[in-house]
Amino acid sequence: MGLSYLVYPGAHHTRFHHALGCMHLMQKAVNVLRFKGVTISEDEENGLLIAILLHDIGHGPFSHAMEHSIVNNVSHEEISLRFMEELNAEFNGSLTLAISIFKKEYPRQFMCELISSQLDMDRADYLKRDSFYTGVAEGNINSERLITMLNVVNDQLVVEEKGILSVEKFLIARRFMYWQVYMHKTGVVAEQLLMGTLKRAKELVQQGAKLNCSDALFYFLFSEINAENFNNETLTVFSKLDDYDIVAAMKDWQNHEDFVLSNLCQMILNRNLLKVKLKNKPIKSSELKMHSEALIKKHKITNHEASYFVFQGKLTNQAYQNNFQKINILFKSGKIKDIVKASDQLNLKALSKPITKYYMCYPKKKM
Amino acid sequence: MGLSYLVYPGAHHTRFHHALGCMHLMQKAVNVLRFKGVTISEDEENGLLIAILLHDIGHGPFSHAMEHSIVNNVSHEEISLRFMEELNAEFNGSLTLAISIFKKEYPRQFMCELISSQLDMDRADYLKRDSFYTGVAEGNINSERLITMLNVVNDQLVVEEKGILSVEKFLIARRFMYWQVYMHKTGVVAEQLLMGTLKRAKELVQQGAKLNCSDALFYFLFSEINAENFNNETLTVFSKLDDYDIVAAMKDWQNHEDFVLSNLCQMILNRNLLKVKLKNKPIKSSELKMHSEALIKKHKITNHEASYFVFQGKLTNQAYQNNFQKINILFKSGKIKDIVKASDQLNLKALSKPITKYYMCYPKKKM
Amino acid sequence: MGLSYLVYPGAHHTRFHHALGCMHLMQKAVNVLRFKGVTISEDEENGLLIAILLHDIGHGPFSHAMEHSIVNNVSHEEISLRFMEELNAEFNGSLTLAISIFKKEYPRQFMCELISSQLDMDRADYLKRDSFYTGVAEGNINSERLITMLNVVNDQLVVEEKGILSVEKFLIARRFMYWQVYMHKTGVVAEQLLMGTLKRAKELVQQGAKLNCSDALFYFLFSEINAENFNNETLTVFSKLDDYDIVAAMKDWQNHEDFVLSNLCQMILNRNLLKVKLKNKPIKSSELKMHSEALIKKHKITNHEASYFVFQGKLTNQAYQNNFQKINILFKSGKIKDIVKASDQLNLKALSKPITKYYMCYPKKKM
Amino acid sequence: MGLSYLVYPGAHHTRFHHALGCMHLMQKAVNVLRFKGVTISEDEENGLLIAILLHDIGHGPFSHAMEHSIVNNVSHEEISLRFMEELNAEFNGSLTLAISIFKKEYPRQFMCELISSQLDMDRADYLKRDSFYTGVAEGNINSERLITMLNVVNDQLVVEEKGILSVEKFLIARRFMYWQVYMHKTGVVAEQLLMGTLKRAKELVQQGAKLNCSDALFYFLFSEINAENFNNETLTVFSKLDDYDIVAAMKDWQNHEDFVLSNLCQMILNRNLLKVKLKNKPIKSSELKMHSEALIKKHKITNHEASYFVFQGKLTNQAYQNNFQKINILFKSGKIKDIVKASDQLNLKALSKPITKYYMCYPKKKM
Repeated sequence: MGLSYLVYPGAHHTRFHHALGCMHLMQKAVNVLRFKGVTISEDEENGLLIAILLHDIGHGPFSHAMEHSIVNNVSHEEISLRFMEELNAEFNGSLTLAISIFKKEYPRQFMCELISSQLDMDRADYLKRDSFYTGVAEGNINSERLITMLNVVNDQLVVEEKGILSVEKFLIARRFMYWQVYMHKTGVVAEQLLMGTLKRAKELVQQGAKLNCSDALFYFLFSEINAENFNNETLTVFSKLDDYDIVAAMKDWQNHEDFVLSNLCQMILNRNLLKVKLKNKPIKSSELKMHSEALIKKHKITNHEASYFVFQGKLTNQAYQNNFQKINILFKSGKIKDIVKASDQLNLKALSKPITKYYMCYPKKKM
Repeated sequence: MGLSYLVYPGAHHTRFHHALGCMHLMQKAVNVLRFKGVTISEDEENGLLIAILLHDIGHGPFSHAMEHSIVNNVSHEEISLRFMEELNAEFNGSLTLAISIFKKEYPRQFMCELISSQLDMDRADYLKRDSFYTGVAEGNINSERLITMLNVVNDQLVVEEKGILSVEKFLIARRFMYWQVYMHKTGVVAEQLLMGTLKRAKELVQQGAKLNCSDALFYFLFSEINAENFNNETLTVFSKLDDYDIVAAMKDWQNHEDFVLSNLCQMILNRNLLKVKLKNKPIKSSELKMHSEALIKKHKITNHEASYFVFQGKLTNQAYQNNFQKINILFKSGKIKDIVKASDQLNLKALSKPITKYYMCYPKKKM
Repeated sequence: MGLSYLVYPGAHHTRFHHALGCMHLMQKAVNVLRFKGVTISEDEENGLLIAILLHDIGHGPFSHAMEHSIVNNVSHEEISLRFMEELNAEFNGSLTLAISIFKKEYPRQFMCELISSQLDMDRADYLKRDSFYTGVAEGNINSERLITMLNVVNDQLVVEEKGILSVEKFLIARRFMYWQVYMHKTGVVAEQLLMGTLKRAKELVQQGAKLNCSDALFYFLFSEINAENFNNETLTVFSKLDDYDIVAAMKDWQNHEDFVLSNLCQMILNRNLLKVKLKNKPIKSSELKMHSEALIKKHKITNHEASYFVFQGKLTNQAYQNNFQKINILFKSGKIKDIVKASDQLNLKALSKPITKYYMCYPKKKM
Repeated sequence: MGLSYLVYPGAHHTRFHHALGCMHLMQKAVNVLRFKGVTISEDEENGLLIAILLHDIGHGPFSHAMEHSIVNNVSHEEISLRFMEELNAEFNGSLTLAISIFKKEYPRQFMCELISSQLDMDRADYLKRDSFYTGVAEGNINSERLITMLNVVNDQLVVEEKGILSVEKFLIARRFMYWQVYMHKTGVVAEQLLMGTLKRAKELVQQGAKLNCSDALFYFLFSEINAENFNNETLTVFSKLDDYDIVAAMKDWQNHEDFVLSNLCQMILNRNLLKVKLKNKPIKSSELKMHSEALIKKHKITNHEASYFVFQGKLTNQAYQNNFQKINILFKSGKIKDIVKASDQLNLKALSKPITKYYMCYPKKKM
């Protein structure tokens, strides 16, 4: 959950907990489906368990923030896949089936859907877990019931008619968690500051400045890693990187002579963040300019330097992505319908419309 | 929860628990509002606590089913009021303020709304409690947060802007519990059978048949009680009536010589209920007739007698009753908007549209 | 839990819940033991599940109180056995193995111990359940861990060394629940009054007085049923008896002309019980006599009649019954020791010493 | 909880959570005592809240392990006091009363006991919290009930008679958590390795070797800090030290050329710890010598170097420290007795006897 603990102090659970939780739910799903007559071989079961256990292994420290700062647009899924392939070589091909499921190449589509879809075991675990640890009870979902309602028709994952309301509830809860937790404005600004910190550190390192940090972190600051040049050595170094490298570096850098770097680090470490305004309409550039100029004047910094403290952005969420993947409902009659059409009252079409919010960040007065 | 335990065996909580729970939440609400600067005198606080503690005291055994069988269209609210007035006489007028709040006559409207509105302490307790005891996790709400978000503007109850998502969640949960629990088809048919049992018992008693039952129950079977003739004596007898009278009577009546009465009682006691079909369209009368005629022929009973086992009905729910009462959201700007307009994405207008479902009940084959 | 809800209003769980819970734990125990290499055939598994599901079916209304009032010293275990035998006849012998386990005749002793011993699935369920519903958190036990620590050596149930502290905890929790809940003085006096009510009702019926009650209850009031004359007819009538019969009867009898009967019923129904004093030493007969004589004088009743309201008794508990059955601990070395010897610090010998407390009940002043 | 998460992966809660929890319980305790007529002024209340909020602020990274490695026998309580005094200067004396309570100098003894005694708010929080996050349900205590039973007689904290069983339960749970969690052998060996790491790092730094680490950590490695030379500068540096410094250092040091340091770091980071044997009797020196010599021979290291991997130690626990402080029970008669004498059956005297266990650590074969 990145820096969400700055908003929800209870949110100290780890990716390890999540990986175990997903695997636990996958075991339940396999049992439920077998009980309903779906054939799942032992190899397939192992493939499912391995794939879900490792699906997030490619996440760097502080999760998503790293995908656009430590590396350049290399998704955590790509890195997870790299790790699985490396492990597959080490374990003589015993992850082949798992990899095929993870890459959505395995012919039995429902297995791929259990790993990644709008109703996968990943979400079934993290929504419940994050709701629990943040204390945001509204995001709680009934994973157990959702799983009990799963079935398979023509190798596609479906939810039985009796579970319609639970699916609706799941989508609503996801939307709730999105805005209340994952996109909480304080969490968002903290994440932006963290990305700014790493971007600034890269700039400085690449200009030849001296920055204390671990060897692994230095590797990623010094070289621009992208999907093309991400090789086995990169993977090894990446595996050594965790939250400790980042925080220890920031603790050192908070006293660095660079105005931008030291201020960014202090803001995060002392939880003394930027101000943030959230709006339904795009931010006026004049407003942004006003804050930017005041900062430039006060601290005699450049436009570029000021852009680390005064910036805008947007948040988008589509609670139900009906263009990509559907959640299919199986009726007693045998018919299958998308949840949007199956739901009798709740206007789920509304949930398919992406919602965009705009934010602007700028320094508090005392900066 | 009436006979819901036939569907959700854990649902054995009592009205006493609910009354205590409501009072507990009311204490929290009073604290929150006072903390925000709303003046509530000690007398008003006591009034609120008494009114919520007693708001359901007029419920007969098995709740709502009784309002149209034991008595003729006397609502439990009317009977609750009778009890409060009786207690007020006994306690020298110390319930006067509570009664005024309960009757919605007290000038400070928010106090009346805390007792009865779309976001009252009654619902804040029973949704959470029923969700817990049935195990239907989807209906769980965050009562504590909802209460923390309450405020008062111009003596009207409002929810602060930060609580919009929690209110949405509350409405969705209510709708969920409505269809999944309160209107569960097995619960509905059990309730209809119970009402049929009492209706039949009345018919028989009024025709002079001998029926064993408690004196209190006999009083209501023998006399047709309605809002006009419900007097103090009636109230005293009513207060003696509870689930034990009804179940003990059914246990005796299951061996009664009347075909209808004994069969109804056996169905409930042995949880061997009628079949029930739920549809989105009205039931065709031909379908109903077919079942009815088969039963008449098989058991040589009258049309009227058959109507206890073959019947139709409809279920209606409007998750958000915007025509009656609104849930008002207070924005930081000071503006107040109905939740339907305040909510950005979720099409709450859809929740304001009443949903109707139609059901038909008829005997299982072996009857 | 009999009348414990008069003390702990949350304690409204039922015997049905307990039966399902025990069966659930038994399934876990079977899985754990099989995982450790203990052979349990499918027939044996079914036997265990049936035996635990039905182990309490012979309990009458309000549990233990009935064993010495409704019937004369016929234990609920004997009646459970009768029911199982009846069901065995109906189901063509398919309960034979279950009955053999229940009667402790099955050669594989650990199976009998899973049904009934100091660490059986019965206790593993009810301690946790009663702790939960009463809110007495101190009685909570870790059933899951206890079961995970089970093993079998020479067909005897043992607990692995790692579980010593959990067993100690279990014994302490049991002792806690015993004194705080099961032997709570208010619960004890309520139970005594209930037994007195039924005893008095029997006296009156056998003297020819007219008492309204269900046919089933009348059967047991009119005839003295004991282990010898308890026949199949008795079993059928017994199966019809539940809490509703008893409470409905008390609701009627509270207005009976007999001073003793009506007063006893009123006390229970209005939760206006006798006073009770708990002491470590036996009650002095002079003290008892004083209260008795005052009552006799005031109400002009006989000595015998007064004895329903003024009486003494004792409560005994031995937290660990080492003379009957031991809880055996399996050490890594292979050695097996009784928990009393295996526990390093906690003086469990103390828990083997029976504790006796003495109580005296007498009327409140206003009677 | 130091490194307990290596045993109980859920144990990721922080000292911040604990501080808030203690303060929450203290508020409850103040309310309960005031309700019972104990006078507590607003200043005293603030003093209590401040003292409990800050009581653990002097803990270094990984808690107790630091008291004998980062510093030389400076207890966390002394450092907490330093921080409070510093804050008192900053806030113009507004912590004076809190400090007086914390130092046990405040004349009203029960206030000091609420902060630190055998039944203080510290333990009331951490036992429950640690039990929850480890999943060791047996350690759960009923903090709420314990607090409700508190009272004050002659300015001394007492527990009312009704709470005897809850106190017993509390002592048993503490003992349980002690052995099952705090003194879990894997946790103990990890803590020893961590202390060894820091001790070795000190040796190397003081011999002039180059070790990468944060400035704050280097300060404590380079200088021997003890109670005498711990000055304001030390306090400032200490406040900058947290888990991140230690782990980041170990991540670097795992590749250090020193055999001892790199091996210690690798063991902790890869959770590939030493073997550990737990015994009731002291370890034989011959056994220790055997392991030590094998290691020396295999790796050609000195005796001193081997002592980081082969060592012994002892664990002591006294569940009830009756020589220091008593838990006093207030009887209805007004008499006050120590819990050891007040408890009727449970041999609490046994809990007053210190229990000692001996352990020996040595490398796994593949080292």
